[in-house]
Amino acid sequence: MSTTGKLYGIGIGPGDPELLTLKAWRLLSTVEVVAYPEPENGGSMARGIAAPFIPEEVIELPVTVPMTVDREPARNAYDQATIAITRHLNEGRHVAFLCEGDPFLYGSFMYLHQRMSRSHDVVVVPGVTSLTASAAALGRPLAARNDILKILPAPLPADRLESEIRDTEAVAIIKVGKHFDKIKGIIAGLGLTGNAAIIESATGDRERITPLEELPEGERPYFSTILIYKGDERW
Amino acid sequence: MSTTGKLYGIGIGPGDPELLTLKAWRLLSTVEVVAYPEPENGGSMARGIAAPFIPEEVIELPVTVPMTVDREPARNAYDQATIAITRHLNEGRHVAFLCEGDPFLYGSFMYLHQRMSRSHDVVVVPGVTSLTASAAALGRPLAARNDILKILPAPLPADRLESEIRDTEAVAIIKVGKHFDKIKGIIAGLGLTGNAAIIESATGDRERITPLEELPEGERPYFSTILIYKGDERW
Repeated sequence: MSTTGKLYGIGIGPGDPELLTLKAWRLLSTVEVVAYPEPENGGSMARGIAAPFIPEEVIELPVTVPMTVDREPARNAYDQATIAITRHLNEGRHVAFLCEGDPFLYGSFMYLHQRMSRSHDVVVVPGVTSLTASAAALGRPLAARNDILKILPAPLPADRLESEIRDTEAVAIIKVGKHFDKIKGIIAGLGLTGNAAIIESATGDRERITPLEELPEGERPYFSTILIYKGDERW
Repeated sequence: MSTTGKLYGIGIGPGDPELLTLKAWRLLSTVEVVAYPEPENGGSMARGIAAPFIPEEVIELPVTVPMTVDREPARNAYDQATIAITRHLNEGRHVAFLCEGDPFLYGSFMYLHQRMSRSHDVVVVPGVTSLTASAAALGRPLAARNDILKILPAPLPADRLESEIRDTEAVAIIKVGKHFDKIKGIIAGLGLTGNAAIIESATGDRERITPLEELPEGERPYFSTILIYKGDERW
């Protein structure tokens, strides 16, 4: 029997604490250490979502990842986090790493998984993503039957986004933030403005749902998703 | 105050009952009626997943939807279900409709939503999808950073599937079933067999994960997902 701890990458959902899974909830009551990403100015969103379920006596381990274009500072941050988490595991403590949404859908947990999965027991617990939460908030399907659904990160070049949006039935554009005006222009050029809505902070305290045509130009929050649906909702 | 009940479309996740959300779990203890899709030969998968959380005293309402190419029998089934659910709502009972995975990601709940959301209070509760559950089971990210992720239903024509798979970093092919040989051939033709794995019944009792190259030709279960990842897992 190994006496080393397990590392759990736990998807905690899009914002509403009630969208944690029963498994996430159970694991949070059994681990000795809870780690989470935190911006340099503090205020971890992941910790905020899971806060009602983090026991008081747990060891907390914030992982500060600099948001820079240069990857080196972030790499160093994950290297440092690997060292800190490894110490806890080797001393027999189980560690939960909190991941907004799902750990493996555009999540940063993959960088810890890549560093630790060969040497330690790493378990990934899937979570509710902001994509389906956004569709639920909007009250419209993401995709149905034999629709193709494309998940497109907004920072991609405009010509690639345009051709991908043209050739599909359903689209979710993520990481909208400062790319909103570019995206809005592409959608307008394709005549799809009436099919599009933007969902900000789905299921969170600041949730806001707006038809694309009603929103003026300007920057939007990073955690905004634009959904476009050309499919037939009737059956 | 209205005395009519609410209809909840509840995502119950991919198979493991512990992947229900806290919200799904709470709602199941408050509704008077639990409805779910059921094949003509019985044995509802959705009911099976949520079984540990369905109170004994609840009214159960199986909705049998014929799996035919002709849409008319299924339309009739949803029309009949709408009549039955509406009667419960109008008599003041809350109704939960159980949806495998998430209600709005290739889910049949949209047909009830479309029929009832104008006349009644319909709430969609997102759930964990088989896509992220499959990635977690496989131990490999679905998509990262600025990858494009495409969700492709296997029944689509081979030429469309081939061109969509070629022009992207990450792919999830759903509804594999009897289309397995076609899909395997397309992936081999693109030289991507080494990047692909098939996950059957993710997180369920019959979960099975196989690298694509190890699986002989033949039909696979309907609830199989093939994941292809060309992106860079390192950072």
